[in-house]
Amino acid sequence: KRARDYGIQIGVLHTGKLNAITDVSGVKVGQVTIHQSDGIHTGVTAILPHDENIFQNKIPAAIHIGNGFGKLAGYSQIEELGNIETPIVLTNTLSVPTASAALIDYTFQFPENSNVRSVNSVVGETNDGGLNDIRRRYISKEHVLEALKNAQTGNIEEGNVGAGAGTVCFGFKGGIGTSSRILPKSKGGFTVGVLVQSNFGGVLQINGVPIGIELEKHKFSKIDQEYKDDGSCMIVVLTDAPLNQKNLKRLAARAMLGLARTGGIAANGSGDYVIAASTAKDLRIAHNSDSMYETFNVLRNNDLDLLFEAVIEATEEAIINSLFAAESLSGFENTKIEALPLEKTLEIMKKYNRLK
Amino acid sequence: KRARDYGIQIGVLHTGKLNAITDVSGVKVGQVTIHQSDGIHTGVTAILPHDENIFQNKIPAAIHIGNGFGKLAGYSQIEELGNIETPIVLTNTLSVPTASAALIDYTFQFPENSNVRSVNSVVGETNDGGLNDIRRRYISKEHVLEALKNAQTGNIEEGNVGAGAGTVCFGFKGGIGTSSRILPKSKGGFTVGVLVQSNFGGVLQINGVPIGIELEKHKFSKIDQEYKDDGSCMIVVLTDAPLNQKNLKRLAARAMLGLARTGGIAANGSGDYVIAASTAKDLRIAHNSDSMYETFNVLRNNDLDLLFEAVIEATEEAIINSLFAAESLSGFENTKIEALPLEKTLEIMKKYNRLK
Amino acid sequence: KRARDYGIQIGVLHTGKLNAITDVSGVKVGQVTIHQSDGIHTGVTAILPHDENIFQNKIPAAIHIGNGFGKLAGYSQIEELGNIETPIVLTNTLSVPTASAALIDYTFQFPENSNVRSVNSVVGETNDGGLNDIRRRYISKEHVLEALKNAQTGNIEEGNVGAGAGTVCFGFKGGIGTSSRILPKSKGGFTVGVLVQSNFGGVLQINGVPIGIELEKHKFSKIDQEYKDDGSCMIVVLTDAPLNQKNLKRLAARAMLGLARTGGIAANGSGDYVIAASTAKDLRIAHNSDSMYETFNVLRNNDLDLLFEAVIEATEEAIINSLFAAESLSGFENTKIEALPLEKTLEIMKKYNRLK
Amino acid sequence: KRARDYGIQIGVLHTGKLNAITDVSGVKVGQVTIHQSDGIHTGVTAILPHDENIFQNKIPAAIHIGNGFGKLAGYSQIEELGNIETPIVLTNTLSVPTASAALIDYTFQFPENSNVRSVNSVVGETNDGGLNDIRRRYISKEHVLEALKNAQTGNIEEGNVGAGAGTVCFGFKGGIGTSSRILPKSKGGFTVGVLVQSNFGGVLQINGVPIGIELEKHKFSKIDQEYKDDGSCMIVVLTDAPLNQKNLKRLAARAMLGLARTGGIAANGSGDYVIAASTAKDLRIAHNSDSMYETFNVLRNNDLDLLFEAVIEATEEAIINSLFAAESLSGFENTKIEALPLEKTLEIMKKYNRLK
Repeated sequence: KRARDYGIQIGVLHTGKLNAITDVSGVKVGQVTIHQSDGIHTGVTAILPHDENIFQNKIPAAIHIGNGFGKLAGYSQIEELGNIETPIVLTNTLSVPTASAALIDYTFQFPENSNVRSVNSVVGETNDGGLNDIRRRYISKEHVLEALKNAQTGNIEEGNVGAGAGTVCFGFKGGIGTSSRILPKSKGGFTVGVLVQSNFGGVLQINGVPIGIELEKHKFSKIDQEYKDDGSCMIVVLTDAPLNQKNLKRLAARAMLGLARTGGIAANGSGDYVIAASTAKDLRIAHNSDSMYETFNVLRNNDLDLLFEAVIEATEEAIINSLFAAESLSGFENTKIEALPLEKTLEIMKKYNRLK
Repeated sequence: KRARDYGIQIGVLHTGKLNAITDVSGVKVGQVTIHQSDGIHTGVTAILPHDENIFQNKIPAAIHIGNGFGKLAGYSQIEELGNIETPIVLTNTLSVPTASAALIDYTFQFPENSNVRSVNSVVGETNDGGLNDIRRRYISKEHVLEALKNAQTGNIEEGNVGAGAGTVCFGFKGGIGTSSRILPKSKGGFTVGVLVQSNFGGVLQINGVPIGIELEKHKFSKIDQEYKDDGSCMIVVLTDAPLNQKNLKRLAARAMLGLARTGGIAANGSGDYVIAASTAKDLRIAHNSDSMYETFNVLRNNDLDLLFEAVIEATEEAIINSLFAAESLSGFENTKIEALPLEKTLEIMKKYNRLK
Repeated sequence: KRARDYGIQIGVLHTGKLNAITDVSGVKVGQVTIHQSDGIHTGVTAILPHDENIFQNKIPAAIHIGNGFGKLAGYSQIEELGNIETPIVLTNTLSVPTASAALIDYTFQFPENSNVRSVNSVVGETNDGGLNDIRRRYISKEHVLEALKNAQTGNIEEGNVGAGAGTVCFGFKGGIGTSSRILPKSKGGFTVGVLVQSNFGGVLQINGVPIGIELEKHKFSKIDQEYKDDGSCMIVVLTDAPLNQKNLKRLAARAMLGLARTGGIAANGSGDYVIAASTAKDLRIAHNSDSMYETFNVLRNNDLDLLFEAVIEATEEAIINSLFAAESLSGFENTKIEALPLEKTLEIMKKYNRLK
Repeated sequence: KRARDYGIQIGVLHTGKLNAITDVSGVKVGQVTIHQSDGIHTGVTAILPHDENIFQNKIPAAIHIGNGFGKLAGYSQIEELGNIETPIVLTNTLSVPTASAALIDYTFQFPENSNVRSVNSVVGETNDGGLNDIRRRYISKEHVLEALKNAQTGNIEEGNVGAGAGTVCFGFKGGIGTSSRILPKSKGGFTVGVLVQSNFGGVLQINGVPIGIELEKHKFSKIDQEYKDDGSCMIVVLTDAPLNQKNLKRLAARAMLGLARTGGIAANGSGDYVIAASTAKDLRIAHNSDSMYETFNVLRNNDLDLLFEAVIEATEEAIINSLFAAESLSGFENTKIEALPLEKTLEIMKKYNRLK
């Protein structure tokens, strides 16, 4: 059961059918999860924004950096050209090079890409080096290619899976989480989907309820033993709303406001990146074109506010979903991270009258 | 009575003695408030970070732009050089030029500045054009100079005063608000003070409680009559923590996370700017110097997280304080904006078990 | 006679008919020049990108900051929203507030703007405080409104006029300069026009010829008396090429490469700003619209290089033109700045075989 | 012989003893060059800013992006934290992942780094896919580790070596180039060293002489066959001047002005990145520290202009050096790129009276 199934209703907008990033039409997610008794707890989560050859049919995209202590690959080219040309892959910090290389392999395997000599791999990461023996760099190119291959539409597994296999969030077991929002028909009926890899700290609150304080477990609960090596949060936002890169960047920035509402603080040690891209069919950018021009029909600046609200709500809920789905895990060097104690949490939610 | 006096306790850190930006030693605030029966409801709020000639003794500063739909003066030079050389003045949108000119006058009146030919005025604004007949541009240089002159340490008036005289926040009367946090001695014992001019929209929540939803009054409550001309939020952060400009910029960015926790969304029409500066005595930057060098003793990156938490909490509370202090106002063309209904609000807070 | 008339041919592209920013169809420039025997040598240069009500018909725009030691007004809103809504006004550093206020007046005087309550004035400046008694802030709103009113198409006066009345460049008298380039028909036939207010330092070179070194007059010629209070360079780039804001920003960045070719170094004390905007009719952005959408037909990223070359060449030539047109001037407190010595300069150009 | 040996004297400042980045005390450069008859012409250039364990003794650093069409690794963390923690490695575009992984290996091999679980590899690249069979991704981790290992002080090989083995610049064979400048003792006596991997286009000029035009070989000489897939330019700037990250960023930005003076235009397809770092011993940033504070003695903003001039001159000369050293090469699929024709070039330089 997900947070919403327990009566935790975040925000004022409706979710999509699956309440997942895959509510955005055409989006596929693939995951490879590795849990081994020798201390390997890591994985790969791949997000494919559409079904075509992405390199030949790029899509508008932007990245907002909430806090840049991270190793994300692909940033500067996305910012300069305003588009992405590979799927988005999430994994652990030290496996970014492997995933980048795998995305080059992936791109090369399309016959139409046979002359391509430059690929801007987009790879995000968080550091699962507490539960996972990260220095072994267990992820191989094959793992990444498998995640890309097994990507599908429909429901997405959350919690200790994919790139979230070994992550920790607010001191509890974190992981992959997802959520979505749908705008009213009169406002375009667009879908905004969010997927997070949660691995950060702060003072957890769920729909405004001070869970971290009540459980006496948060980043500052023992101030002289404050944990400094906070992880990070990777946030992927996809929407079918027709947004140009400037407005995708503004949309991406709002995801951090959603993270804020869970109690996150974008700590010094955190790599908080938001990748936002539009899957709107009319906005595809052909790699080659006979024309000097391209025509875009996009939303006006004045009509963004509901999308901003949507991404804030979906980010908040995706993070909470990651916590609800994750399970306690014993990992590398016997590190043990407990899941969010569900029963107690729901009790506290009830105490604060926040279960519908 | 302020929010905290009613038992609303935001965050995990302690406030300063006054729970105000003036808890930061040496900081003075001056305000000029204009309420006239002919539709003028506006004013000036001036913040002086220290008592000396600021032009000759600049201080490290940075600006984070949450959303740049605004007319803030001074941005690029602060970003390039890393310091401010005038007090910070807040006023209404159309009076920024007047306030900028007044800060030049102010700077010129110091005898030691008699050769100065370049002044980077720092002026923030929000648009009070609903309640205030803003097109009349009533603010004069004299009003600004008066605010600078009457600045003092100690308690700060909140609500419908100064630059907040005519602002609107979450559909309720907004205004000036302030709050502060103090770090534990073992972590430096620093003070972080925040002052806001609240004039923005979203779905109000107070300490996590869904006030806007309960009162059925929020930006999206009537989705087809959504109000687009959202105002803005000016946020001023001062601290005695010794931070270089890079880390002041990072601190400033966190203030937006505090705004997020009140339900703000940084709407398209919002000008959300955070000015952060350090009052640490050792970090003063002399306008002229015999040496090519300057020496700074600053906090390491690793020791910022408590300051981040402090600025998030203080920003959240400063916004809530502005709402609690503001009073219903009838203004220009009989526009009437109600204050946050205190009794009902406290009832809702109680319903959600959020009054101590 | 302008530089080109002497046989100085900069670059590989053709100039427009006037070799001026006014080669871009519809662009008008107006100037007010003030030279007074009591030490006032300053003025205003106004650039109107098109003939309509600009507030109601905004145009895509971006600003690149080469070095941000300056007081430009309007930056953050242009960056956030991607457009300008007023003409561009240039003046001296301390008159930016006056010019900003005047642009609000200007905007308010259009009947269709009678409900407008927010105006993002765009004002650039350089510091003419050597020749001009800048602390008197002689420029009035009337001067600015006059420059806006007298704006016209056709030839532009260069040198000691308008905002360049009192500026200094490479130690010689600087001022207003302009130039343009036209792309081949097969590449769209677009025009790129540049206007500069030159007031900066470095080691002057003209079309690659080391004039500053030969004349033994440059920023580093007497290294222990190096002049630190360098002025600035304001660069305005207009084009009828259909560019979105992202690519206007990239175009703007290239103007600094043109400045570099004159020997400029973007010194610490310099405020080097490039404002680029597209006058393409199809890219007008209506202030109000019945539609949520807007459609733009823009150049692809792949077809920008000739525009980049054009702006580099036109910026270089505009700066040189400002030096050729400017005349020696005695100003405030008997400061005397010599014009570039034309005869000697041409001799040196000949010595280096650089006159056609 | 290098450009200067032929009498080409760029700028007004003195070079260091070697006229190389290794004039900056302690800097080492290592290169691995691969030329194979089966179409492999690529390599690795590694720059070590100092002799210690860089991860434990980070140095202040910043990156300026002239044009972001590139795959540089390490950007966001450098920008967020203001330092680098690995050597800087240059290679070809598709080998960035390999080089990133190798830098992790390199870091792990230091015993003191045995607990390190996060490494921010700094890898730059240009695309040598014309002469090199880049899709084979021939570079291995061993090549990178070898370049790091063989790094040494002293003279640096230029031209078709290391990461410049297969690059093309202004249509001629490009490659690795280096240069340096030394400030006068009275101004601190600092050294600025630059190393470039030249692979970009434009209209070549050497010390202001229009070589590209005279040779009728430049990017726009046949306008309808304009070559769009321009490469890039990686620029590494090291200095012993004590600069904080903000001023390193400003220094980095000036390197693009040096590139401009060679006729470069930062084309759409170019990835032009400048990495600047300070080797000043007092500015080392310990990975771990018992103190919350660190003390930095840095240059004031007012004393940067000579450093700006130095980096501009050294970048210009480093690029020209790369062209003078590079030799004609036949590579992948019989692509042949000629070296800059030395004799003709010198004749043209003479025609323009630019040989001392």
